[in-house]
Amino acid sequence: MRDFLPTDVRKREYVIGVIKSVYQSYGFEPLETPAVENIETLMGKYGEEGNQLIFQILKRGEKLQESKKLGVSEDSRLADLALRYDLTVPLARVVANNRERLPKFFKRYQIQPVWRADRPAKGRFREFYQCDVDAIGSTSMVVEAEIIDAAIKILERLGFDDFVVRINHRKLLSEMVSSAGIANESDALVALDKLDKIGSDGVKGELVTRGIAPDAADRFLASVAGTTSFPELDRVVELCGSSRVKIDPSLARGLSYYTGTIMEINVPDLAGSLGGGGRYDGLIGMFGKEQIPACGFSLGLERILVVMDERGMFPPEIAESTPADVLVTIWSEETAPKSLKLAQDLRADGLRVTLYPEADKLGKQIKYADSINVPFVCILGESELENGTVNIKNMKTGEQQTIAYGKTGQVVKQLGSVRH
Amino acid sequence: MRDFLPTDVRKREYVIGVIKSVYQSYGFEPLETPAVENIETLMGKYGEEGNQLIFQILKRGEKLQESKKLGVSEDSRLADLALRYDLTVPLARVVANNRERLPKFFKRYQIQPVWRADRPAKGRFREFYQCDVDAIGSTSMVVEAEIIDAAIKILERLGFDDFVVRINHRKLLSEMVSSAGIANESDALVALDKLDKIGSDGVKGELVTRGIAPDAADRFLASVAGTTSFPELDRVVELCGSSRVKIDPSLARGLSYYTGTIMEINVPDLAGSLGGGGRYDGLIGMFGKEQIPACGFSLGLERILVVMDERGMFPPEIAESTPADVLVTIWSEETAPKSLKLAQDLRADGLRVTLYPEADKLGKQIKYADSINVPFVCILGESELENGTVNIKNMKTGEQQTIAYGKTGQVVKQLGSVRH
Repeated sequence: MRDFLPTDVRKREYVIGVIKSVYQSYGFEPLETPAVENIETLMGKYGEEGNQLIFQILKRGEKLQESKKLGVSEDSRLADLALRYDLTVPLARVVANNRERLPKFFKRYQIQPVWRADRPAKGRFREFYQCDVDAIGSTSMVVEAEIIDAAIKILERLGFDDFVVRINHRKLLSEMVSSAGIANESDALVALDKLDKIGSDGVKGELVTRGIAPDAADRFLASVAGTTSFPELDRVVELCGSSRVKIDPSLARGLSYYTGTIMEINVPDLAGSLGGGGRYDGLIGMFGKEQIPACGFSLGLERILVVMDERGMFPPEIAESTPADVLVTIWSEETAPKSLKLAQDLRADGLRVTLYPEADKLGKQIKYADSINVPFVCILGESELENGTVNIKNMKTGEQQTIAYGKTGQVVKQLGSVRH
Repeated sequence: MRDFLPTDVRKREYVIGVIKSVYQSYGFEPLETPAVENIETLMGKYGEEGNQLIFQILKRGEKLQESKKLGVSEDSRLADLALRYDLTVPLARVVANNRERLPKFFKRYQIQPVWRADRPAKGRFREFYQCDVDAIGSTSMVVEAEIIDAAIKILERLGFDDFVVRINHRKLLSEMVSSAGIANESDALVALDKLDKIGSDGVKGELVTRGIAPDAADRFLASVAGTTSFPELDRVVELCGSSRVKIDPSLARGLSYYTGTIMEINVPDLAGSLGGGGRYDGLIGMFGKEQIPACGFSLGLERILVVMDERGMFPPEIAESTPADVLVTIWSEETAPKSLKLAQDLRADGLRVTLYPEADKLGKQIKYADSINVPFVCILGESELENGTVNIKNMKTGEQQTIAYGKTGQVVKQLGSVRH
């Protein structure tokens, strides 16, 4: 798990800010759920492998003592709580529990960390953020179109111009599998999911290894390669009205709870996806009496950040990562209150101002300003204090000018805007 | 632990936004640490009671099996990780581990949840947010003054006008205790800490119960009541230059790691505080070789929210909590793409637009808009589609007007600004 130092946080908050702003412009509302869920809420929702990856929280006090006395055989008896594994299951729980408090169609976004007890690897972390958007309550494909449209707008706003939104449909996948004469659909889809990595021959080999007849495998792969149209998918393309959306019959996202459209966004220089999602009309019913249709999309924040860093896509003010517009110096213990006052006055002018915390040699104060990348230093030295002036040092050019105290904010802002 | 539905999140994000913006204007930088720390990092840092309140995370896989075989007697053997208990200890760890990557004076803010396995009670939660600001690396009291100044600005910006910042100093407390002839300082301070609740006689009773002689208790309480000045505190008051800052020799914050100034902010209608903090020059040294001075302040987000809610202090746009400025209707499956397009066009005009997700009776669509508190509905019906117009319904007044398609965004914005 990672600490995010200031430069990291600024980049993350910039991207999260764009995501929030676009989702809000589509009428999606914010939801936050606790990091900790009851263990029963999570267990069994992510398959056997998922169960192993859930961080479990030890019972406390008497309950823990009781569990120990019982001579526990199963780990889950020692734990009653667990860390959130994704944002979809908590959403389903919230919707099932708050049906009367939520609107008939509930559109929410949620940007929070999740935890998985995976072996850490390059680009894989045990704590990472998910950025999810879901629309609850309608089976209309307008929902798919709006979710795709919003994801496109986010990536465009962040500066991506080479991504593709691939879409497929569970029904199309089922039809292709069964009309090829393959009985075991999940075996076929697990193999198909590797098409990007191992190619058509590789998938055929894997299908045969899994006991599927070679001619059935050929028929299946031929229909995957030959299909360009499907009513539901044609409708999504029509509604989106964007040339970025492509029907791809080979797309087979892993999660078993998808029931309709599935979608994924890719860029050429990244093996994985920048995000993915789909329709899941059966999940919410697992938490309540009512079956409620839903469709969602999850943007991969960590991957978006990696690609934006590699491509240098952050705007200059984020990439430069300065903690303040100006540093104010302190001449002596006696004059420190005047430096605090200057800092307050400059903040009232709308500037971000950091104050050197103690009386110190002027050279050390300027060196510190340089080390934290602050573009201007306002020097309140002996003569400035006597004359009611401030000396402004431009840290980039080295130029200095002495001006009337009351004009300091205005001059720094002028110099600052020239600089950018 | 709580789910935050959209109205809650909007209020929380509004307050957090003000806090961030003010701290940034003082040159504080953002830091984020993982929710999960190694258990050794947390254990023993919060006293025996604190240890009991730490959520522990069960070991996984083979390590868990090994611990079980050992016939564990201590709980901590079953756990290797734990949930963050506060933001100060993680900060100390980060500073000790990243000394060369961080500036000489590191000013950071951190706004993240923490977890405590407390019995839930009114206003007390097992997951809650802390908003911490800390300045690392200087012993100067300019640091205290800036931290207090920033907290004052935040509360004023949020609309608080009746709060007081009480300050005290560990050295003054020690001097009062020892000159009263009391040997056990921590007993004396634990009793003094209850002055607000049980009054002077109550504290005297508690001091005597703890074995302190009645005349020593009297001397101690007299000096607490009679002291109005202390050099370090006078300096903080001078530097702050705010009449809100009051010296209060009875302030005795519980945490044992404070070494200098301590501070707390109170409002009349809340028993607890809106925030508190102090100087702790010894804590960071526990995590590294170097002793590094530090001073911090923690704003109580949950309490600030409670008081703001009770007093109705949220600005109208937050309190009203609308998911969108306008809802666009869908006339039929065939014309749905035109509704999607209108929604896109209005978003391009800067409006937040939600689309009814399916073709439905117009009355139901308008009723839904009303249920989610959207102030305007843009109706694309049969005649509007034929004539290239849009019908705008003002949900507050009931008024409707039909206008040219291209003017829709402009008209909604005009109507909207009249409404606010």
